[in-house]
Amino acid sequence: MSKTNRVGSSPVRDLLALTARPEVISFAGGLPAPELFDVEALRTAFDQALSRRTLQYAPTEGDPDLRARVAERLTDRGLPTGAEDLVVTTGSQQALTLAVTALLEPGSVVAVEEPTYLAALQAFRLAGARVVPVPGDNHGIDPDALAEVVKRERPTMLYLVPTFANPTGRTLTADRRARVAALADRHGLWVVEDDPYSELRYRGNPLPPLAAHSERVLHVGSFSKIGAPGLRLGWLRGPAELLRSLVIVKQAADLHTSTIDQAAAAVYLGAGDIGRHIAGLRAAYRERRDAMIRALPSTLPPGASWSDPDGGMFVWVELPDGVDTGELLPKALAQDVAFVPGAPFYATTPNPSTMRLSFTTNTVPQIEEGMRRLATAFH
Amino acid sequence: MSKTNRVGSSPVRDLLALTARPEVISFAGGLPAPELFDVEALRTAFDQALSRRTLQYAPTEGDPDLRARVAERLTDRGLPTGAEDLVVTTGSQQALTLAVTALLEPGSVVAVEEPTYLAALQAFRLAGARVVPVPGDNHGIDPDALAEVVKRERPTMLYLVPTFANPTGRTLTADRRARVAALADRHGLWVVEDDPYSELRYRGNPLPPLAAHSERVLHVGSFSKIGAPGLRLGWLRGPAELLRSLVIVKQAADLHTSTIDQAAAAVYLGAGDIGRHIAGLRAAYRERRDAMIRALPSTLPPGASWSDPDGGMFVWVELPDGVDTGELLPKALAQDVAFVPGAPFYATTPNPSTMRLSFTTNTVPQIEEGMRRLATAFH
Repeated sequence: MSKTNRVGSSPVRDLLALTARPEVISFAGGLPAPELFDVEALRTAFDQALSRRTLQYAPTEGDPDLRARVAERLTDRGLPTGAEDLVVTTGSQQALTLAVTALLEPGSVVAVEEPTYLAALQAFRLAGARVVPVPGDNHGIDPDALAEVVKRERPTMLYLVPTFANPTGRTLTADRRARVAALADRHGLWVVEDDPYSELRYRGNPLPPLAAHSERVLHVGSFSKIGAPGLRLGWLRGPAELLRSLVIVKQAADLHTSTIDQAAAAVYLGAGDIGRHIAGLRAAYRERRDAMIRALPSTLPPGASWSDPDGGMFVWVELPDGVDTGELLPKALAQDVAFVPGAPFYATTPNPSTMRLSFTTNTVPQIEEGMRRLATAFH
Repeated sequence: MSKTNRVGSSPVRDLLALTARPEVISFAGGLPAPELFDVEALRTAFDQALSRRTLQYAPTEGDPDLRARVAERLTDRGLPTGAEDLVVTTGSQQALTLAVTALLEPGSVVAVEEPTYLAALQAFRLAGARVVPVPGDNHGIDPDALAEVVKRERPTMLYLVPTFANPTGRTLTADRRARVAALADRHGLWVVEDDPYSELRYRGNPLPPLAAHSERVLHVGSFSKIGAPGLRLGWLRGPAELLRSLVIVKQAADLHTSTIDQAAAAVYLGAGDIGRHIAGLRAAYRERRDAMIRALPSTLPPGASWSDPDGGMFVWVELPDGVDTGELLPKALAQDVAFVPGAPFYATTPNPSTMRLSFTTNTVPQIEEGMRRLATAFH
């Protein structure tokens, strides 16, 4: 059956298996630190939210209170938004798949930065889309290169994680944001701005979201990194006409997102402590980032380079030519440490010498110990 | 954009708007009765379930405890099932859409009973499938007619609600179940058995699920009608090879279903009171069913007929030829009573004289008053 074949296997699933042994210090997953979850505040929020209303079916667009809270927060961050501009999704992964379903046909072209988020690549492949990389550098994709790709390939969609990208940690500059948005407007290109990390900034000043520059940008956000991923809550901001299609696609996907989880998140965001909670995450993750960056020179072999992210969860490492991180991984696991080889993050030709390290899940002493183990694996 | 056009509009959404005014007695929605929700037991379950683990990302297949509980309950109902045979889904609507994504291509043929669940028809249309009805009668589809359709149309999938169907309330007989399953085995047809209602039986003896007869049957279940729909929990039981594909499709759809909602449902099912709770639902819904059936002869015009369901949520009404229930609906709403016109439940040529009435959402006095209003609308 051709369809079942296209579904294929899943690199994410294979990778998740790496971190199962408790003695492994894993830099592989993109997991928030569980010890930093705001457990008691969320417990209170669930208790307050649970009612006959929140146990019942609910509108596909999402809980009105949650949409209003998210709209306020986006507006405060420089993206003027009303509740009616938002659809709540079952995690930001669903937002991505809804956009894919509403906008792409088999054979449609999707432009991406390379490397990029592998579950997005998986969703594009499942839809039968053709993925085309846009060249870039440490400041994100190059708008001139994008103009070339648009001219040559006529993509329907550009997918970006413009702020603290997964897997590279890179951030698209303000100037490039404006130029990418102008290209989208000029050519009727849809841009998906996947934005789970931008509130996890450890230095420098926030940049306006790409969506602030153009109505052609679908802005996708998430509760997973600022609150907790277990609630599976994301949101999608877009123009009214497209939201109507997305709501119909979502209705077929799961009717609506958990009523109780949405209501609990609305109570939690409404309680007003999220700012303080995020400040705590930033302080802890900044130390972890610094610990990893500090350890890298003595961990990696000569000739290695790495990104120096201003925020987010990931450091991207490039080892000297000829080193295959896929072959290195079993040696690392033998030392009870894990990372993700870079190859699955590439849409086209992978660079086998790359790897992704997450610094959020482990404490500073765990990071230091994990980096020592990694150094052993390299020798 | 052709894709956005295919998304089209949604009859379900338009219908949900009917029930918004509080003074309307609505027989339109397929909502469980909120006053019967087991609120305090679910509150306790959420409180017990909430932890650092249940706020974190989780495996795509679902919570191991929830899968084990559901497997036990299916086994007790005559469908031998292990936890590993199940994938937890974000409501049974997601189970349906995952099966559609994994199995259908644009142009694939789906056989259905007619009329059938309209959100299933919507999911098939979104996938670009061609929907072909299988003739039947008050005992469900006719296996001889199915054999004809299989020969003529070569469908990839047969979609059925074999027990207390939505919208008709009909149940496929035991003999026909065996014959449908044998056809599926012989012709390599996938059968989706959508089974949200079978525990809501008000008379007669349970029938073995269709899935008990064949490995070609994907059995889809739901927490929505026995527990609460707000948690958005369903499950899909199928053969190992297909489950692997479905898990990959689900990963692209939403990574996994809410960790906390799954854990709360596992605690709730494990507490052992679900049997008593369902017995209470049955007792209340049986009275409501009887009240509606009792009122119909004096409500409907001469020449009308209706189904007499052994369980579930719905009575299907056929009015005399020439009556268009779509035209009747504004008159009913003017009397502050609502129903669903039958036309959207048809895959092909609708019978405009049909309507669906739900008896679960309203109390017996509300049903009696609503039926009086409906009688007024008819005159």
